[in-house]
Amino acid sequence: MSQRQDEQIESRQSSMSMKQRLHGVLERSDGGFSWFDIFIIVLICLNVVALIVETVDEIHDISPLAFRIFDTVSVAIFTVEYVLRLWSCTVEEKYGHPVWGRLRFALTPVLFIDLLAILPFYVALMAPVGLLDLRILRFLRAVRLLARIARLSRYSSGLRTSVGVIHAKRAELITVIVFLSILLLMASSLMYFAETEAQPDKFANIPQSMWWSIITLTTVGYGDAVPVTVTGRFLAGVIAILGIGLFALPAGILGSGFMDEMNRRRQGPTLCPHCQKEIHE
Amino acid sequence: MSQRQDEQIESRQSSMSMKQRLHGVLERSDGGFSWFDIFIIVLICLNVVALIVETVDEIHDISPLAFRIFDTVSVAIFTVEYVLRLWSCTVEEKYGHPVWGRLRFALTPVLFIDLLAILPFYVALMAPVGLLDLRILRFLRAVRLLARIARLSRYSSGLRTSVGVIHAKRAELITVIVFLSILLLMASSLMYFAETEAQPDKFANIPQSMWWSIITLTTVGYGDAVPVTVTGRFLAGVIAILGIGLFALPAGILGSGFMDEMNRRRQGPTLCPHCQKEIHE
Amino acid sequence: MSQRQDEQIESRQSSMSMKQRLHGVLERSDGGFSWFDIFIIVLICLNVVALIVETVDEIHDISPLAFRIFDTVSVAIFTVEYVLRLWSCTVEEKYGHPVWGRLRFALTPVLFIDLLAILPFYVALMAPVGLLDLRILRFLRAVRLLARIARLSRYSSGLRTSVGVIHAKRAELITVIVFLSILLLMASSLMYFAETEAQPDKFANIPQSMWWSIITLTTVGYGDAVPVTVTGRFLAGVIAILGIGLFALPAGILGSGFMDEMNRRRQGPTLCPHCQKEIHE
Amino acid sequence: MSQRQDEQIESRQSSMSMKQRLHGVLERSDGGFSWFDIFIIVLICLNVVALIVETVDEIHDISPLAFRIFDTVSVAIFTVEYVLRLWSCTVEEKYGHPVWGRLRFALTPVLFIDLLAILPFYVALMAPVGLLDLRILRFLRAVRLLARIARLSRYSSGLRTSVGVIHAKRAELITVIVFLSILLLMASSLMYFAETEAQPDKFANIPQSMWWSIITLTTVGYGDAVPVTVTGRFLAGVIAILGIGLFALPAGILGSGFMDEMNRRRQGPTLCPHCQKEIHE
Repeated sequence: MSQRQDEQIESRQSSMSMKQRLHGVLERSDGGFSWFDIFIIVLICLNVVALIVETVDEIHDISPLAFRIFDTVSVAIFTVEYVLRLWSCTVEEKYGHPVWGRLRFALTPVLFIDLLAILPFYVALMAPVGLLDLRILRFLRAVRLLARIARLSRYSSGLRTSVGVIHAKRAELITVIVFLSILLLMASSLMYFAETEAQPDKFANIPQSMWWSIITLTTVGYGDAVPVTVTGRFLAGVIAILGIGLFALPAGILGSGFMDEMNRRRQGPTLCPHCQKEIHE
Repeated sequence: MSQRQDEQIESRQSSMSMKQRLHGVLERSDGGFSWFDIFIIVLICLNVVALIVETVDEIHDISPLAFRIFDTVSVAIFTVEYVLRLWSCTVEEKYGHPVWGRLRFALTPVLFIDLLAILPFYVALMAPVGLLDLRILRFLRAVRLLARIARLSRYSSGLRTSVGVIHAKRAELITVIVFLSILLLMASSLMYFAETEAQPDKFANIPQSMWWSIITLTTVGYGDAVPVTVTGRFLAGVIAILGIGLFALPAGILGSGFMDEMNRRRQGPTLCPHCQKEIHE
Repeated sequence: MSQRQDEQIESRQSSMSMKQRLHGVLERSDGGFSWFDIFIIVLICLNVVALIVETVDEIHDISPLAFRIFDTVSVAIFTVEYVLRLWSCTVEEKYGHPVWGRLRFALTPVLFIDLLAILPFYVALMAPVGLLDLRILRFLRAVRLLARIARLSRYSSGLRTSVGVIHAKRAELITVIVFLSILLLMASSLMYFAETEAQPDKFANIPQSMWWSIITLTTVGYGDAVPVTVTGRFLAGVIAILGIGLFALPAGILGSGFMDEMNRRRQGPTLCPHCQKEIHE
Repeated sequence: MSQRQDEQIESRQSSMSMKQRLHGVLERSDGGFSWFDIFIIVLICLNVVALIVETVDEIHDISPLAFRIFDTVSVAIFTVEYVLRLWSCTVEEKYGHPVWGRLRFALTPVLFIDLLAILPFYVALMAPVGLLDLRILRFLRAVRLLARIARLSRYSSGLRTSVGVIHAKRAELITVIVFLSILLLMASSLMYFAETEAQPDKFANIPQSMWWSIITLTTVGYGDAVPVTVTGRFLAGVIAILGIGLFALPAGILGSGFMDEMNRRRQGPTLCPHCQKEIHE
């Protein structure tokens, strides 16, 4: 073995170990927060607050430059973070390949959201001025804000629990969703046929009367579309009483699943009362 | 035994077995879906979407002919399906009689809905023009759409579970419904006497003030009928607080029954994966 | 013993036994319904329907006389029933005294409601015309209708269960009611101070802003009183989120108590797993 | 030991024992109510009623002097009570130091609220007239009323239970609150981008569209801000259905925790009345 090869291996090893340390900091898997995580969380929170507060003209107009600088600095930090995550991901075996591994890592939902949080900045920077009309600019602003809020969910154990619950209860949820869709279609069609003549502006067609159905069945009840005919009110009363119980179901399923999941996480494994071995649910 | 008799029996047997195979495809009883079921479900779904989207004038006017053709083709397929179901039902012992068995099968709720889904098409086709004024045409359209949505429920295990739950909890439900009716009548009468003088248009009579009661007790709260007198508001506050808890009951009973039923169907007794003994929860 | 005394005793005994049979029919205590109960329930139901439908002018004007006759006949039957109940109640030991026993029986809530259901008829009949202005007449009509609806509750096992539940959970309910009253007062006062300047007509004083609090905390949300100031909206948001959970509590307590009570009634007594004797809860 | 020292000790002891008796009356720790507690509760209740009723001009104008006198007398009693509490608190070891102990006792939440209930009176009395403009006077009135309502919570076991529940469930609550905040931000941002162009007055900026989110997700649904665009209504429908289940969670967690806590306080382990063994439910 030549000395050069040795050096290469050594440098690769030290680079590997630096990569590994970096990867350990960036992608903690034990559920706790590193100092780096906390720094990023605080930065994202400040960022989200800035982007939200910026929409209030009175506040934005105090110092548009300050908002611009803060956004630029944040994007710079997020970009470095993104590049480092992408560089160090090859430490993990499943993303081991320098090109395809990194690409597959970049396409995971978490990394994709990280990209969406910075991409609009560069698109707005690089696109020729003529192309960026108001609608596209607004769309970029929406993506930027939503992606940054979504980045917070990486650190929320509540969201991870929710995803777990939705996965665990998917059979019940699909059953209930199919059933509720039928109920929703029935309610919307009935109200359309009952009210369209009396209120052609509010129950003009069935998709529009679905707005009434959703707002009624969720008990929100804005009052912007309300039946006025006797038939319509009678049907609406029956739909309200029958439907609300059934519409409360998916909420109940998700809610109880959420509680179970939380208890399970806190309590540790269930043991069989007969043989005392752990029962995997 | 003459040859002719032999042939008759043979042909009857082969016809029987073809009928049985057809019946097996049309009416699967093991809870799974055959390729035929999936075809019909997709067709009904497309049909329902078409009938709903058709009510939006802008979409309907793009190509009224396309909607007409699609409806005619669908009805043709549904008619063939209906006739085949009726022809093959004699395979089942309880519908064995060629005439009375088929009639009794045709009057089961499921087949009756199948008929309602196609009948309006033929009524509109065959009726003399003079008889079909706008109201009857609208009624036929409503029946057509509602029956096709209802056809979907044949394939929804959620609906079957619901029917089971309502049956299992019927005693509680009747008790609660009687109680809630009394509450509803009380609330409506009280509000009528309190508000009719101040708002003779919104609380003109007790049936009309029932609209207020239902919308308030289900917490929908449109705001189209709202008490304005001091007495009315005081009563409404008491009714809202007292009544909402009691009105949430039937929802709770149905909801918990639904969950129990779903758990029961999926599980059977829980067994420990290590020692195979039953675990009493 | 003279013959006359003998006869008196005999007549008293036969009268007693007729009274007892009558009392048995009128006041069944085994939870079932006698033919007499069913007759009275149907009569009350028809009566309530008539009184409700009567408030719709279009229906009342078809035949005011029919409504009048039906009411008179009903009151006659209810009066006979009332008198018979009062006469036969002395069969029960606790109402044994011919005068005081009957008076105490007449003052039980159930009998008092029976009286209220018929009294307005006689008051309206006997009072000098000058005394009965519109307000008093309306009050009499309200009492008549509400008392007849209330009479139905005698036959509703749901109501009896509810009374049992409220009694069983009274400690929790009082705790929660005190707590919610404090919450309600806090919310109303905060919103009054926040909104009274901006909307002096909707938040004129604290009792009036209680209307907002109740309608918001029960999630009815009519939208007739809505905060418009930034402070008011911020407070309202916090109140809505914090308060709704707490306001759902009494409903939850009553609801779960109701379910427990129903299960208990259906299932029979709980047995101790150690000694197999019945546990009185 | 000189006689003088003896006397001093004796006087201190008798003073101590009087202090202790007073402290025992003022700060009962066994959960029951002394006659003094009941007197103060009744006085606070009357006071709160007076301050609330006073905001109704028609009632206040009947006799402004009566309200003034009642307030002055109440403040006098509350002041004496406050001073006695502060004087006698040194009986407790942790507040034993005559100065620092009393100061620390005065800064406990309960005593601080007691101070806030009387302080506004003295501020309004002593401040130079020029300083007290309407806004400050209103603020003082608000503090006075809110602090007196808050004083009632000292005697409400419901509030103590709630504080216990919030403490016991804090981990779940934080998880859920973080998750719901993300959901709230997402909903508000989405609706802002969807509706701001169509309704620039109601969805002018994201903080304003948070008002819509809170009122919709809590199912209050006033109807003062309602999406009108197709995109906005579609998003609102999805948010309503998805979000309501998740928003019901903190209520559910607090509610079930509240019930558990109440059961736990009342019961201790359940014993069989026959064999006195514990029954595991």
